[in-house]
Amino acid sequence: MIPREKHDRMANAIRVLSMDAVQAANSGHPGLPMGAADIATVLFTRFMKFDPKQPNWPDRDRFVLSAGHGSMLLYSLLYLLGYEDITIDEIRNFRQLGSKTAGHPEYGHAAGIETTTGPLGQGLANAVGMAIAERKLRDEFGADLVDHKTYALAGDGCLMEGISQEAITLAGHLKLSNLIVIWDDNRITIDGAVSLADSTDQPARFAASGWATETVDGHDPDAIAAALERAQSADRPTLIAARTTIGFGAPTKAGTAKAHGSPLGPEEIAGARASLGWDAEPFDIPSDILDDWRVAGLAACKQRVAWEKRLEEAGNGKRSEFERRMRGDLPASFGNAVADYKAQLAKDKPKVATRKASEMALEVINGALPETLGGSADLTGSNNTRTEQTAPITPDDFSGRYLHYGIREHGMAAAMNGIALHGGLIPYGGTFLVFSDYARPAMRLSSLMGIRVVYVMTHDSIGLGEDGPTHQPVEHLAALRAIPNHNVFRPADAMETAECWELALGEAKTPATIALTRQGLPALRTETSSENRCALGAYEMATAGEQTAVTLFASGSEVQIAMEARARLEAAGCPTRVVSVPCMELFERQDPDYQRAIIGEGGVRIAIEAGVSQGWARFIGEDGVFIGMDSFGASAPQEELYAHFGITADAVVAAAEARLERQTDAA
Amino acid sequence: MIPREKHDRMANAIRVLSMDAVQAANSGHPGLPMGAADIATVLFTRFMKFDPKQPNWPDRDRFVLSAGHGSMLLYSLLYLLGYEDITIDEIRNFRQLGSKTAGHPEYGHAAGIETTTGPLGQGLANAVGMAIAERKLRDEFGADLVDHKTYALAGDGCLMEGISQEAITLAGHLKLSNLIVIWDDNRITIDGAVSLADSTDQPARFAASGWATETVDGHDPDAIAAALERAQSADRPTLIAARTTIGFGAPTKAGTAKAHGSPLGPEEIAGARASLGWDAEPFDIPSDILDDWRVAGLAACKQRVAWEKRLEEAGNGKRSEFERRMRGDLPASFGNAVADYKAQLAKDKPKVATRKASEMALEVINGALPETLGGSADLTGSNNTRTEQTAPITPDDFSGRYLHYGIREHGMAAAMNGIALHGGLIPYGGTFLVFSDYARPAMRLSSLMGIRVVYVMTHDSIGLGEDGPTHQPVEHLAALRAIPNHNVFRPADAMETAECWELALGEAKTPATIALTRQGLPALRTETSSENRCALGAYEMATAGEQTAVTLFASGSEVQIAMEARARLEAAGCPTRVVSVPCMELFERQDPDYQRAIIGEGGVRIAIEAGVSQGWARFIGEDGVFIGMDSFGASAPQEELYAHFGITADAVVAAAEARLERQTDAA
Repeated sequence: MIPREKHDRMANAIRVLSMDAVQAANSGHPGLPMGAADIATVLFTRFMKFDPKQPNWPDRDRFVLSAGHGSMLLYSLLYLLGYEDITIDEIRNFRQLGSKTAGHPEYGHAAGIETTTGPLGQGLANAVGMAIAERKLRDEFGADLVDHKTYALAGDGCLMEGISQEAITLAGHLKLSNLIVIWDDNRITIDGAVSLADSTDQPARFAASGWATETVDGHDPDAIAAALERAQSADRPTLIAARTTIGFGAPTKAGTAKAHGSPLGPEEIAGARASLGWDAEPFDIPSDILDDWRVAGLAACKQRVAWEKRLEEAGNGKRSEFERRMRGDLPASFGNAVADYKAQLAKDKPKVATRKASEMALEVINGALPETLGGSADLTGSNNTRTEQTAPITPDDFSGRYLHYGIREHGMAAAMNGIALHGGLIPYGGTFLVFSDYARPAMRLSSLMGIRVVYVMTHDSIGLGEDGPTHQPVEHLAALRAIPNHNVFRPADAMETAECWELALGEAKTPATIALTRQGLPALRTETSSENRCALGAYEMATAGEQTAVTLFASGSEVQIAMEARARLEAAGCPTRVVSVPCMELFERQDPDYQRAIIGEGGVRIAIEAGVSQGWARFIGEDGVFIGMDSFGASAPQEELYAHFGITADAVVAAAEARLERQTDAA
Repeated sequence: MIPREKHDRMANAIRVLSMDAVQAANSGHPGLPMGAADIATVLFTRFMKFDPKQPNWPDRDRFVLSAGHGSMLLYSLLYLLGYEDITIDEIRNFRQLGSKTAGHPEYGHAAGIETTTGPLGQGLANAVGMAIAERKLRDEFGADLVDHKTYALAGDGCLMEGISQEAITLAGHLKLSNLIVIWDDNRITIDGAVSLADSTDQPARFAASGWATETVDGHDPDAIAAALERAQSADRPTLIAARTTIGFGAPTKAGTAKAHGSPLGPEEIAGARASLGWDAEPFDIPSDILDDWRVAGLAACKQRVAWEKRLEEAGNGKRSEFERRMRGDLPASFGNAVADYKAQLAKDKPKVATRKASEMALEVINGALPETLGGSADLTGSNNTRTEQTAPITPDDFSGRYLHYGIREHGMAAAMNGIALHGGLIPYGGTFLVFSDYARPAMRLSSLMGIRVVYVMTHDSIGLGEDGPTHQPVEHLAALRAIPNHNVFRPADAMETAECWELALGEAKTPATIALTRQGLPALRTETSSENRCALGAYEMATAGEQTAVTLFASGSEVQIAMEARARLEAAGCPTRVVSVPCMELFERQDPDYQRAIIGEGGVRIAIEAGVSQGWARFIGEDGVFIGMDSFGASAPQEELYAHFGITADAVVAAAEARLERQTDAA
């Protein structure tokens, strides 16, 4: 037990650092750090297991600041506890270019920042993923090596966002007793009182999803500690509703929206200093208080040392596998497994939908990589995401490797982010490509954080047929390609599908979307070379008979159309090459000479993709022809839709011939 | 009271039509229509107020099939009740090209389809918007003219999607007693039992959000009717949890996932016919049963006639205003109000952020258009969406014109869809542009349905500064421009902002996003002409001194950078023109000559936008220069970010000069 006075001084250190840093930056959010300082102090001094000197210790407890605008709470804690990345100078440079202390916590900027938060509700769902990863790895490696909690601090905004419901219900269903969420119940949002827009009984809501709930005074350290103590042994996830005052200590702004998102101002800050009994200058923490915090930072060191001993005793095989998994390295055997599979494909030449080809590839991948954790947002049979190796995880049995995420695309994506961030597992999850829109905010964060998450997006065009325009992606390939650091793969056959999966798994710092067809496709790539041609992003699948007159660029299911059109054009004496474009992002990484060679010079250029044209100008220039969609789709059998929207070999041949005639006329 | 036997035969007509249509189409979802047939029969024969001969009667009750995959339920009802658009031939042509009976219900295909559903959870949130619209218009025009209910039928998937929580909590907060949601509790999803992925106590969850709840046997007509009866007089929204058997009547597949999403097959259909006691051939409804349904369709006719009498008696002014509002025509005075405001702007030349300019425009718009209904997802002061005219709506007082939507971007967008679909109101709502990702599935549906919803998206680039990359849109302009039938406006100053608002409101069948800055911008357009130049999509803002050497294309906040660069290039003797591109979509609608003239021939072409390059190749071709973003942003003051990412007049001048030199060298 920490005496109350000492607790108050420690908590006030967070408050003062936060309000001073926001004031110095002339922007930021003082309200949450000041309001939640007591909660954070209790949590980090009495419960959290971590070691500031070994911040990436795999068995540490995770802390997720879901209400990421309160970033100064986290930065203050990291500084006070002695994390080396966050010095007092970093605190002084809050929100400045190049600092580690960005406006919202950015994963990768500093050890101790477990995830990037700010877009509300994401952190809460990341925490669910981290807790899933812990349960899964505990099952696999034993509680000797994996036995920790995930804590999340969520605000009203997190709980109002729809993603929170997906996260909460998934966690409740899975009985994630290792997950403890503290709700900073300050009853204030940007527009004013929460009661302007919401009347939800949050504990009742969580209870309806199978959570244990606690309600405490968020400024009473003993009450907070007692609730956290009970949560340690709960048989389900726990919500602690902690009633707090936003901007606690600010004389006139505390408890109001004015404390939320802007500097308090010199006068209010002086008043807060007085009311908190704080004499020290900005960024100067009295040494006794800093010592108290640093001592708290040392507390878990013993546990870490004991854990390392257990790791050593675990035996070489288990230890090296655990370490490999936590490093995120793929096993050396993986490449061979893929090569063998590709050799088999070259023989078998399967005519299958690429979603089926993805399942076939996954059989190999899941056999070679024990770290994959599959799932689908209730479309398992449609996404073909489950393989022989992946029995479902159930609330009482985490030995499986497959999650029925439910009809929760957004929650699935954010949970996968949490699983990837935890380490030791590579998550992949499926839905229809059109529903990438539901998952998009979390997919963006996969890219921003630079983590390995694989999105399996099937039914990737009007080729899905009768379900109609609500289910037919048209703009989604373009929209996903627009996201920085996101590899969008669209393989054309089983061979390309295998290669795209290999590439997706090989990129530790770039998430991937693999877009796959519902409809069957012929085998186009049947050579026996083990080279991964998709790694080039775009490559010549068929060369022209002689001097190229026409180049056809296409991706996915439209490559077969290009190949068919090429055959007819060549037969008509028109030398035509086909470039398959499975991944525009990887193409952009190639050297300029290769890029120029692929794009070619002169001749008619035509791109074919059953989506909008955005992005294809890179290949066909201003004068090229795009054959694809410029409207939403329609409900009909897929062959009819391709004909109706004019995405056919006929249309390609006609367009090529029209252009060639025009060129002849002009010459 | 309808005798049970008659009820059963009427409900079985839905079941048989549905299974037969799915079988004929060889795709579709028989399970829901068969399971929910009893509910629908009770609702449409005993409660719903509508007139198949006047299907757009404004005071009709709305029915939303949120579980849109069960489209055959709705088509069966419309056919049986005598809606003229849905003939038996349309039912026979279920899911065929050109039919009105698409795989999922498509708004606009046939009267009686109140909204497009299929993406789960959307319909539920649309229904909340419809109920909001009803309450608002009832307050404005009186219960004599507006007094109806909104019913929604939701499945497990709807309730698992996060958007449902946003919708439910908003409805509960607003005490929407005119909203009744029936949950088709069949405990089956595509992957199997709901219990694979969810353990939520749904009635408890709804109760936590302020809903009345009922639990009934969904195959007991009297129990369903009793619950619906109680819901009529509730003082809050009502959830009726109706326990049903999916595929009711199918001998072996009922109650299983096999009944959900594929044809039952001839044998199972024969078995279902036997178990339901149905002898008739496919698509042949025995005349007595069809008569019973048609009589039910006539029941509300009297109410419609009485309503029309009340409308006549309401007085010419009220009547014509009500009719104008329901037609969606803007008042004749609107154009003048905007013209006067633009003349004032030409004099005042305000240097303001475009979000502030938007507020200024909205003061004029909200004064001229009583039909606007504003709101924001908890960013009122940041989005500048509230004006003098728009007092907030509260649960007990709908006389206001502003909704505090809460931190619910997705729910807001889908509710706005519902408001627009209801008619009589034009909704606009704000959030940060980066959070368009959260709202995107509903924004897509605005476009697919072709309805007038205006998305006010502020903080539209790295110009938002310190909040950092989580809050800085980079890919969002491109991603929104990729959506068919969606006008993305990005005005450069106050004048363009006024013009973009005028254009957005003038398009009844295309939704709009208006992207607005946080940072202040100079007045660039100060001419006194009343012409709406933004209507051209892209136009020459500044001409070159002589034969154009350089053309600069830019949108929004980057137009000032283009203008500054132009001034310097012209001073250095390099004739430079500037094209402002406030709306790419409208540019594409111009005639080809205008387009060619704007793009120009020869010379160096440079595009400047603080976002990704995708989409700009249309303007600058393959050889042009793009100055913008190719990564995520960073946390720092905005001026520093523009410099850091090289989006400056310096960079534009340097790029132009480098290209001009290269041309000189080559010549």
